[in-house]
Amino acid sequence: MAEHLSQSELDYPFKLLEYFNGFRVSKVIFSACELGVFDLLLKSQEPLSAQHVARELSTSVDGMESLLDALVGIEILEVETTDGTAFYSSTDVANLYLAKGSGKSLHDMIVYYSQTIYPLWNNMADAVRDGKNQNEKTFGLPSEEIFQAIYRSEGEMLKFMGLMNSSWVLDGHDIVTAFNLSCFQTIVDLGGCTGALAREVAKAYPSSSVTVFDLPKIVETAQKHFCQENDAVSFQSGDFFEGEIPPADLYVLARIIHDWPEEKSLKLLKRIYDVCKPGGGVLLVEALLFENRRGPVMAQLFSLNMLVQTEGKERPPSDYTHMLEKTGFSNVQVCRTGKSYDAILAIR
Amino acid sequence: MAEHLSQSELDYPFKLLEYFNGFRVSKVIFSACELGVFDLLLKSQEPLSAQHVARELSTSVDGMESLLDALVGIEILEVETTDGTAFYSSTDVANLYLAKGSGKSLHDMIVYYSQTIYPLWNNMADAVRDGKNQNEKTFGLPSEEIFQAIYRSEGEMLKFMGLMNSSWVLDGHDIVTAFNLSCFQTIVDLGGCTGALAREVAKAYPSSSVTVFDLPKIVETAQKHFCQENDAVSFQSGDFFEGEIPPADLYVLARIIHDWPEEKSLKLLKRIYDVCKPGGGVLLVEALLFENRRGPVMAQLFSLNMLVQTEGKERPPSDYTHMLEKTGFSNVQVCRTGKSYDAILAIR
Repeated sequence: MAEHLSQSELDYPFKLLEYFNGFRVSKVIFSACELGVFDLLLKSQEPLSAQHVARELSTSVDGMESLLDALVGIEILEVETTDGTAFYSSTDVANLYLAKGSGKSLHDMIVYYSQTIYPLWNNMADAVRDGKNQNEKTFGLPSEEIFQAIYRSEGEMLKFMGLMNSSWVLDGHDIVTAFNLSCFQTIVDLGGCTGALAREVAKAYPSSSVTVFDLPKIVETAQKHFCQENDAVSFQSGDFFEGEIPPADLYVLARIIHDWPEEKSLKLLKRIYDVCKPGGGVLLVEALLFENRRGPVMAQLFSLNMLVQTEGKERPPSDYTHMLEKTGFSNVQVCRTGKSYDAILAIR
Repeated sequence: MAEHLSQSELDYPFKLLEYFNGFRVSKVIFSACELGVFDLLLKSQEPLSAQHVARELSTSVDGMESLLDALVGIEILEVETTDGTAFYSSTDVANLYLAKGSGKSLHDMIVYYSQTIYPLWNNMADAVRDGKNQNEKTFGLPSEEIFQAIYRSEGEMLKFMGLMNSSWVLDGHDIVTAFNLSCFQTIVDLGGCTGALAREVAKAYPSSSVTVFDLPKIVETAQKHFCQENDAVSFQSGDFFEGEIPPADLYVLARIIHDWPEEKSLKLLKRIYDVCKPGGGVLLVEALLFENRRGPVMAQLFSLNMLVQTEGKERPPSDYTHMLEKTGFSNVQVCRTGKSYDAILAIR
C-alpha cells in the first residue's frame, strides 16, 4: 500500500482501481477460508479439480472455479492444467496461515473480519459523520455499550476471542521480547482474553508467574475453548474498571486503551497505578501511529476500525506517554516492532 | 496485486495482511468520496485542517481526522503540519478521478461500488455455494430477474447508469480504437445505457451514425440525466431479447454477454446475426480472462462479481469465439487493451 501514486496514474489509474477492488480481494480470501478451501487442499496433498473441490465442499462448480481462479490470480493458490482440466494446489503461505489446523492459522481472524468487521465498515461514512461506532446501524445494538455489542451472543463472543487469539500468533513473540521483562515476577494481562499473549509472556519468561484477568464470561469461555494442557498461565476473573485489580509487578494492557476515550483510559491507568508496586510497571500493546500521523497505513486503518466499532482510536506514542505520565508512571520507553502491534513500557 | 507472495511471507505475512485489509482501503476512499472530501479540497485550492473539512462537510472532527490521515497513508492526499496543525491537500490523481466535477471523475463508479457492490460481496461465500446471485439475501429481491434487482428503484437505476457512464471514461477510447471501425456506416450500441461508449464511437468515427439502444426507462433516464448538447448519438428504445433490433452495419455489445449464461447469450447473438447485414459485424466489449485462467486478476474479480450479481461470468476469448462462430459470425479478432476491458470483433 506504500507504493507511490506516481504521475503515470494520471494516464490510467491502475493503483486507484486496485484500491477500489481491495474489498473484492479481501472477500475472495475470506470466502475461500469460510468454505474450507484451504483446509481441503492441505488435507488432500494432491492437486484437485474445481469439480472435486466443489463436490467435497458442497458448492456450485462454476462458482468454485471462479473463486479458485481468483485465488491463483492473487498467488494464494497454484494451478496446473492436465488434459484440459485445471488442478489447483495450495501454497506454503496458505497452508501456514489460511488453513485451520496450523499453529499459525489466521482462520479465526478472517472469520471475524469477514462476518463482523466487513459489515461494520459498510457504514464508515456514517461513522465519520457521527463520530461514533456503527453497532446500532449495522447490528441494531446500542452504541454506548461497546462490549455488549462485541459479546452480543456466545457465538459472536467466541468469534471475537478467536480474532484476539489468532492475532497474537503473528505478533505475540515480538511484543513480549520488545523489552526484557525478566525482572517482573508476577505479570497480569488485564483483558487478556484467551491467554494467547500471556502464553507468549510465559514462554519468554518461564520464571515469571503469568495471570490472565478478564470478565467472568470471558474467563469461562477461554477455559472451555482455548485452554491448553499444562497451561503455563492461570486465569482470574473480574472487572478492571469496577472491581479489584490483583497485585502484580507488571500489568499488560494489550489493545485495551485503544477501545476508549482519553478520560476512561486515564481512569483505568490510575486504577492500575494505585495497585502497582513501586518498581513495577505497565506494558501497553497497541498499533502506534507515527507522530506526524502519515502512517503506518495499518495503524491508520485500525484507528478507523476503532471509530466504527468502539469509543477509541489508535494514537501516536506521545499520546500514551502523556497519559502514562499524567497518571504517575515514568521512564516511558517505546518500541516499534515493524509489524502490526508495538509496545510501550512504563515504570511506577 | 501481482506482486509475488515470496518465501519471506512465511516469516511474516505482510502481503496477506494487506489483502485482509483491502476492504478497509476501499472503504476509506469510498467514504471520503461519499462525504465530499475530494470535491471540497479541489474547490478550496488551499490546504485545509481536519476541523475545517469537518465543519464544511458536517462531520465529526475526530472521525474526519482519522479518515484524512488514512488517505495520506495511501497517498491519495498530502499533509503539511504548520504550528502543530495538520493541513490536508489533494493530489492530481484525486482531483482528476475522485472529485465530482472532472470529466474523468469516477465518483459514480465509487458510489455504486460502495453502496451496492460492497454489500453484495458480503454474501460471496453463499454465492459460491449456491452458484447464483445474492440479490435475494442482500436486498430481498428475486434472484431470477437480475435487471429487476439492478433497476429496483429510480435511485438505484441512476446509480447503475452512473457506474456504466464513468467506467467508459477510463476505457472508452481504447475500446473504440482497438479496431478500425470506420467502414461501418451505422452503428448501434445494444444496451448502450447512458451513451458514454457510443459517444466515444461517434468521436472516433465522425462519419458514422451512432445509436444507443436500450430499454424504454433507461433511454428516458439517459436523455433526462446524461444527455449532452448537440449530442453526437441518438437514442432508440426496445428490448433486444424480445423486440425488434434496428438494422445496422455494426452492433456493439459492451458488458452485455457477461450478464448471461451461454444459452441466453447464443439467443441474443443469433438475433443480432439475423438482422446484421452481410459484411456487417458485432463488437463485443468484455474483460477477457487469459486462456490459462491465471489472470488478469481484475477480470477474475469481475467474474466473481457477475456470480454475485447476475447470471453470467467473465470468459476467455475462446468462449466468445466459440459462441460467435456457433451463431454464424466469422473472422473473429481479439484485442486486449491492457486495461480493464477488451474488444472482440466478428463479421457476418
